[in-house]
Amino acid sequence: MSDTLATDRYGDPDARLGVLTEVLELQLARRSVRRFTAREVTDDELTALVAAAQSAPTSANLQAWSVIAVRDPGRRARLAALAGNQAFVAQAPLFLVWIADLGRARRLAVRADAALDAADYLETTVIGLVDTALAAQNAVLAATSLGLGSVFVGAVRNHPEEIAAELKLPPHTVAVFGLAVGEPDPAEAAGVKPRLPQAAVLHHEQYDADAADAHIPAYDERLAGYNARYGLTGGWSDRVLARLRGPESLAGRHRLREILDRLGLPSR
Amino acid sequence: MSDTLATDRYGDPDARLGVLTEVLELQLARRSVRRFTAREVTDDELTALVAAAQSAPTSANLQAWSVIAVRDPGRRARLAALAGNQAFVAQAPLFLVWIADLGRARRLAVRADAALDAADYLETTVIGLVDTALAAQNAVLAATSLGLGSVFVGAVRNHPEEIAAELKLPPHTVAVFGLAVGEPDPAEAAGVKPRLPQAAVLHHEQYDADAADAHIPAYDERLAGYNARYGLTGGWSDRVLARLRGPESLAGRHRLREILDRLGLPSR
Repeated sequence: MSDTLATDRYGDPDARLGVLTEVLELQLARRSVRRFTAREVTDDELTALVAAAQSAPTSANLQAWSVIAVRDPGRRARLAALAGNQAFVAQAPLFLVWIADLGRARRLAVRADAALDAADYLETTVIGLVDTALAAQNAVLAATSLGLGSVFVGAVRNHPEEIAAELKLPPHTVAVFGLAVGEPDPAEAAGVKPRLPQAAVLHHEQYDADAADAHIPAYDERLAGYNARYGLTGGWSDRVLARLRGPESLAGRHRLREILDRLGLPSR
Repeated sequence: MSDTLATDRYGDPDARLGVLTEVLELQLARRSVRRFTAREVTDDELTALVAAAQSAPTSANLQAWSVIAVRDPGRRARLAALAGNQAFVAQAPLFLVWIADLGRARRLAVRADAALDAADYLETTVIGLVDTALAAQNAVLAATSLGLGSVFVGAVRNHPEEIAAELKLPPHTVAVFGLAVGEPDPAEAAGVKPRLPQAAVLHHEQYDADAADAHIPAYDERLAGYNARYGLTGGWSDRVLARLRGPESLAGRHRLREILDRLGLPSR
């Protein structure tokens, strides 16, 4: 079991784990799920996902996030259209929209007639983004443990203002990503996507770019092999370069800073 | 078991979970650990933590993060001094520094003589921050499952340039947070910190600020009760207001945007 988990995760027959727990098994075997059965996500399951999310660490206990549970089919269809026309957003029985939320603190300050000037700085937005991601990742693993599949949807940042209007988001909040959740359709053809060799991302004591980057060509080959199995071409490096070539490759998200300004999350 | 987990997590005798898994049990029972035994974190454990981190979702498979494993006592002491003089950074046998890493992609582009202009935009830095946090949270839970404790250290953002020099970080990378890891010292007096009531952070279909904020006064009372058990005063709202009062409450981090510019992570 251990051997298969690591070799699949790295696409490397020599990859091994020397220790293993049930959590590690679930983490290593996780894949993105984009096709779901018609089974609803129950209220008890939703409660558990949010409790898991709230159990994640949060900077200074600020808890600078919120989450919107969207089940209404019409709203899911509208959100799918705003988020890159990805059909699985409409198809998933539950779409969770994760919100970096400085609005709660701003409203506290208004009620207390107190200053909250630190919220004008990029650092505070970073706290919101990081808190949101830590929470959401706990929900992802909780879902996996409940037999549910999920996939993140960063494309909610393609049109943050339209998403905010659809979800009636108050000022000083922004949708960071969505998470489509449901029971995995066993008919979906998908696998565990191999990641960079560990030696490419883990450094000891100090960063060593030459040593790390030396492992990228082998990974390009492994990922090209994985992609070919699903009828796709190319390795990793070419896809990274295409994804970050220029502002036009960001699907509108190059405007994020000015949009955050308008949403009340200034980046001073 | 279920009942205690939820009541402790929310500080609310009426909180309940209707479903439970081993993952949820570990998540709900997790607390920050700031005192460690002398036991080393083994290489096998470190490998497992990083494999867990790499198994987290990543935007478009960019994997825009790296991690530095610091075990050298002198370096841990210097990092502790830079990160708010928090003694547990020097005391923990392993200090992981999590890096938002656009350097890897920038180096790919240089080698390929390709443009990478999308990396100049705040959106790309956000991808790095989110990828880093998703990965690190998987490592946190993997550590918990291995019997290890941990605590995040956002104070590495107090002096990002000095941290970059200590860790020889290349351009286009920044330390987002540290994670002190080790075997929990059973003598540490600490508990599971209660979080906001679920109804304060979870919204259905659309955000309802009035309904959510109505739960804050009860939470202030619960957290004041929890704090009193550890000799601390105050609830939640007063601490949030103190933490975000003004730039002077950010321990230097109000300069983050200009520092990111200098580190090669422009926020266009």
